[in-house]
Amino acid sequence: MIGGGSWATAIIKMLSDNITEKELFWWMRNTEAIEHIKKYRHNPNYLSSVEIRIPEANISDQIREMIASADYVVLNVPAAFLKETLKELGPKDLEGKKIVSAIKGIVPDENQIIGEFLNEKFGVPLENILVISGPCHAEEVALEKLSYLTIASVSTVHAEEFAGMLNTRYIRTNVSDDIFGTEYAAVLKNIYAVASGICHGVGYGDNFQAVLISNAIREIDRFVNAVHPISRDIKESAYLGDLLVTAYSQFSRNRTFGNMIGKGYTVKSAQLEMNMIAEGYYAVNCMHVINKKYKVDMPISRAVYAILYEKHSPVIEMKLLSEQLN
Amino acid sequence: MIGGGSWATAIIKMLSDNITEKELFWWMRNTEAIEHIKKYRHNPNYLSSVEIRIPEANISDQIREMIASADYVVLNVPAAFLKETLKELGPKDLEGKKIVSAIKGIVPDENQIIGEFLNEKFGVPLENILVISGPCHAEEVALEKLSYLTIASVSTVHAEEFAGMLNTRYIRTNVSDDIFGTEYAAVLKNIYAVASGICHGVGYGDNFQAVLISNAIREIDRFVNAVHPISRDIKESAYLGDLLVTAYSQFSRNRTFGNMIGKGYTVKSAQLEMNMIAEGYYAVNCMHVINKKYKVDMPISRAVYAILYEKHSPVIEMKLLSEQLN
Repeated sequence: MIGGGSWATAIIKMLSDNITEKELFWWMRNTEAIEHIKKYRHNPNYLSSVEIRIPEANISDQIREMIASADYVVLNVPAAFLKETLKELGPKDLEGKKIVSAIKGIVPDENQIIGEFLNEKFGVPLENILVISGPCHAEEVALEKLSYLTIASVSTVHAEEFAGMLNTRYIRTNVSDDIFGTEYAAVLKNIYAVASGICHGVGYGDNFQAVLISNAIREIDRFVNAVHPISRDIKESAYLGDLLVTAYSQFSRNRTFGNMIGKGYTVKSAQLEMNMIAEGYYAVNCMHVINKKYKVDMPISRAVYAILYEKHSPVIEMKLLSEQLN
Repeated sequence: MIGGGSWATAIIKMLSDNITEKELFWWMRNTEAIEHIKKYRHNPNYLSSVEIRIPEANISDQIREMIASADYVVLNVPAAFLKETLKELGPKDLEGKKIVSAIKGIVPDENQIIGEFLNEKFGVPLENILVISGPCHAEEVALEKLSYLTIASVSTVHAEEFAGMLNTRYIRTNVSDDIFGTEYAAVLKNIYAVASGICHGVGYGDNFQAVLISNAIREIDRFVNAVHPISRDIKESAYLGDLLVTAYSQFSRNRTFGNMIGKGYTVKSAQLEMNMIAEGYYAVNCMHVINKKYKVDMPISRAVYAILYEKHSPVIEMKLLSEQLN
């Protein structure tokens, strides 16, 4: 496991409930957190209620050491930090390993989803790339509330093997072959959660929110069909469910960030106030660049971009957007 | 307008903001409410903030009188009371009139949607039948929050004409030719709102809710395609949006009713406590009968039926259901 946040902690919990703890290796950057976990068996910063039962020797800030004997490497750091995290590694280090993206973001500057980035920069063959997708708030995993995950890979064997390691009393898994659609949908949903927050902040109600989200899933459908036209049902949990759990969550950072923007905060002051980063803020910029190639009609995404990056008025931009929805 | 509830009051408001008040005629059963409205210009029981500007002579409990000069008759009473409401009318009374269903329910005993019932029992030709559908909480109309309605009719001319009477600063309309799909989706969504409430009451979280709703829209899609297989996009606002606004609403009567059932109330005690009827309770029984003909795979609807009508345990039934979702 590469990363020490709440989603990483949640997946560590699922894996620990399934396979022998000594088969798990956990890298994180924060050495204080590592010491805390070794001493107290709980992550001090995220999902602190979860008991960590991994042997002390298997938790470290030495990435090469941690992945050396790993069969599956789960990438679970914010997309913005991925390049920095992997900087001491080369294609040799990932050779033969299956790489699971739990990131839900676009690699900055490269404007690639994780799978493309790993394939191109590290030579990871596509069949060794997996994507793990929700709908899944990490907080509910800590509470052992029943949740469903989708594991996507062009290799059904790999997808099913990894899914088998996650299935527990409170986790059900589906497998899919749609690594591109699953990853893009996971990225896009954060943009629509920002849009939901902006609309709420500006004063739109639940009736409008329902229209916004029903347009958003069509926007996701159009985009992933343009990028990777395979037969898929966008109403499945990995796409629509993931959008719903994020856009309707009162706890979503993206929605909270959007709400502040809608209420008139600047991007900078919203970020300062929240003291954390909403992934949708970066995602909408990356998607703006990527969509220059595909030219998909994405009015919601475009409106969010105009508000966050071109300093358009949220009130005016959402009014213009409302005329394009149906 | 036939009916005196909140949805009727909301539509009266839209119409009043659009056409001359003297062209509007309003029937309701409650004579005290009629006197109150005539005297104070507000409905005492529903959306009391809305100002009613209809001439006194145009508000009455005499149904034949009220519909006599009407071009469009909007039916807006609970489905359970429709036959009683129309009992003094015959086919002659509705001849040549366009009938708009705002009911979102199944006619009890007949197990027909409103359009079928009117067509069969009153000889209203299909092209004179319209359906008005959300996503639209009446409360948000009173607040003039931007909302979108869909007007369905096999006659585009009628749909567009009626839509034109509703369009205001805070109402946008779409037209559709799918009267069956729109009406069934509006009925089914109440069942899934009950299901959402039951799951919440039993202890499932937001992750599961997202999976439930993404399965529910597929269940709606399967059913309406079986009943009326035309080309439609179930992700449009009239279908998916309407489901979302109901299933995610904290104020939905259906969700509240389901929540009480999930927490262990009996049907009777939940109804007594709420002092009102959740439409989903009746709808799931009617749909159970109707689906005997179509035999569509509807695991969520079936689980709700088993809990409400066969007294199955909500805990066990939802656990069994969870194994069928993905």
